Amino acid sequence: MNSRFVYFDNNATTPLDPDVRERFIQALDLYGNPSSMHMFGRQAHEGVEWARGEVARLLGALPEEILFTGGGSESNNTVLKSVLHPDFPRRKGKVITTAVEHPCILETAAFLKRFGVPVVILPVDSEGKIDMNRYVDELDDSVALVSVMLANNEIGTIQDIADIAKLAKQHGAYVHTDAVQGVGKIPVDVEELQVDYLTASAHKLYAPKGVGALYRRKGAPLFPLIHGGHQEKGLRAGTINGPSIIAFGCAAEKAGSLLDKEYARLLRLRTKMRDGILASVPDVMINGHSEDVLPGTLDVSFFAAEGESILLYLDIEGIAVSTGSACATGSLEPSHVLMATGMDAELAHGSIRFSLGRFNTEEDVDYLLEKLPPIIERIRKMSTVSRKEVHQ
Amino acid sequence: MNSRFVYFDNNATTPLDPDVRERFIQALDLYGNPSSMHMFGRQAHEGVEWARGEVARLLGALPEEILFTGGGSESNNTVLKSVLHPDFPRRKGKVITTAVEHPCILETAAFLKRFGVPVVILPVDSEGKIDMNRYVDELDDSVALVSVMLANNEIGTIQDIADIAKLAKQHGAYVHTDAVQGVGKIPVDVEELQVDYLTASAHKLYAPKGVGALYRRKGAPLFPLIHGGHQEKGLRAGTINGPSIIAFGCAAEKAGSLLDKEYARLLRLRTKMRDGILASVPDVMINGHSEDVLPGTLDVSFFAAEGESILLYLDIEGIAVSTGSACATGSLEPSHVLMATGMDAELAHGSIRFSLGRFNTEEDVDYLLEKLPPIIERIRKMSTVSRKEVHQ
Repeated sequence: MNSRFVYFDNNATTPLDPDVRERFIQALDLYGNPSSMHMFGRQAHEGVEWARGEVARLLGALPEEILFTGGGSESNNTVLKSVLHPDFPRRKGKVITTAVEHPCILETAAFLKRFGVPVVILPVDSEGKIDMNRYVDELDDSVALVSVMLANNEIGTIQDIADIAKLAKQHGAYVHTDAVQGVGKIPVDVEELQVDYLTASAHKLYAPKGVGALYRRKGAPLFPLIHGGHQEKGLRAGTINGPSIIAFGCAAEKAGSLLDKEYARLLRLRTKMRDGILASVPDVMINGHSEDVLPGTLDVSFFAAEGESILLYLDIEGIAVSTGSACATGSLEPSHVLMATGMDAELAHGSIRFSLGRFNTEEDVDYLLEKLPPIIERIRKMSTVSRKEVHQ
Repeated sequence: MNSRFVYFDNNATTPLDPDVRERFIQALDLYGNPSSMHMFGRQAHEGVEWARGEVARLLGALPEEILFTGGGSESNNTVLKSVLHPDFPRRKGKVITTAVEHPCILETAAFLKRFGVPVVILPVDSEGKIDMNRYVDELDDSVALVSVMLANNEIGTIQDIADIAKLAKQHGAYVHTDAVQGVGKIPVDVEELQVDYLTASAHKLYAPKGVGALYRRKGAPLFPLIHGGHQEKGLRAGTINGPSIIAFGCAAEKAGSLLDKEYARLLRLRTKMRDGILASVPDVMINGHSEDVLPGTLDVSFFAAEGESILLYLDIEGIAVSTGSACATGSLEPSHVLMATGMDAELAHGSIRFSLGRFNTEEDVDYLLEKLPPIIERIRKMSTVSRKEVHQ
């Protein structure tokens, strides 16, 4: 076994921040049901409302505009499926989204389509930005909802949500952004973005898994995905997960206070990693937008090398990376994000996402830059040998 | 402040078992995304699959028949809303449920109705058992799904699920039971119950909030409520909550090993509490079934005393109880469960649920029996005074 472990898969999920962990463990004692009237319930309720304030503050929202859910996928499903509800304005109206969304948007959009909703999937350019001309062409007064992600989970490209929202509003459409990868990494302000709904997830933010948030602008229509008790204003049934929500609040507070410093630090590490790879490995391509990109996300395509092999060789060296979204693991399909940027399938198969986070150091990047070049060389050699064998 | 705290609200939620807590805290270090291919992911995946086996074992199911969800409400919603899916056999066929279900069943049933599903709400008798004659009358080949809870959260009445399932199957209907209050308290075996779907929740079982299970018999139709990634066989998208699931597995293991002993112990405590209340407080009524009842659930109606006042006076003494379901808190409606048993609204308003759990002791019951009688007496006196004042 190797002695060093380097986790470069922070876009898949993050470890707990030590402060969040401590607060979480303390909060495990606040086990009362926050909906209960007795002391045990009231104490948990107070913690949850504190956390609601912290999450709201990170997003520039009002506390009453924040709903806690079971995670980002649930938040996204809740917004999109609201379009099916009899009381949604422009019910079953057109839904516009993009080719590079997370599967929980694309699969939900496909589900809506099955129920008769016209769905438009906007194409993106080679850097992952949506085609604004096509978007404008599709906008009309039949649009119920526009859902465009803030930052892409694979290539890190940041969309121009404020512009997108402004245009949508001229046609009376509601606007949602899946900001799971953006919150805590780049400044996110619902007033600046002018969105009606925004999705965030705790476990991308050094907080526990199993809890998410949904910002809903006051007055914007929303209908429960999970029906039942009166929790969360009747919009999300299920016992409120006090301890995890409190940890989420703590993580939101910390993410807000570290934002500028971490942004600069991660961008520096990303630049070092990118330049180091370009200098030491021939025939590579950096994916995503050159400027509007998450500070910690570096997606690289290696010509004539299979991504899964690279992942496994790096894993042997204790370095964790991803070949795309963890949610698509097991699938043999190339990344739908890279394909949407016009990449050919073979090159897409040779792509690796390095996603840096709060606990990565300069030494981690040095370690990768030491281990990666010989791995790529070895894989390319083997691949050449096996190709020769096949051809003989 | 009082020096003693007694938690008699275990049906609302439970504290963590110390063993579960320890395992949970250890599992926080397994932070990898269980869908990731690298070591961090594989370690988390292994833990999750171990837990799946433990939950399956507690239910007499196969591991591959267990899906992890975000909680009981989500599991229940997933099953019931599957009836709307174009591929569900007898799509939008009749759904039969009962008047005493948890709100997450009743509200979901109301939602189904809005989408054109014929919903039958079976009445119950004064002890909370469903009307079997009415049930048999409603059964025909148009029934898509029967959903009857195993044990009631307020009055503890246990339904005859095996009989209910057998009859449903004669008509080709699928059968679901919300067993959230039963699992870990009474023996639950999906083969004996002959159900196709069963809902369980971790936080009723001394495990963390925010995670539930859904048993789905092999081959029974089921469609995702949350669309997205390929997790949980494509039936429940969202990052798998490794640490909480591992804690759930640990809780399931422990619940199974303690089942018989705890059943006997809680029944003894319940009997002591019931007999003590009957002996020391006049004009009370014990609700629920006299025999088929959860060992730790005691629901009591106090004539001429308001439940919320009783709750608050007990809270001052450090004793936590409930006036019904925590999920209905804030509602001024009397308990729908008690109303369904034919109780008048005033008496229903004077009802308290004592729900005992693993950490309650004989001394806790003694403490309650010391504090409760003077509280009831005081409330009744005040109530008489204020009535007199009103009448003057």
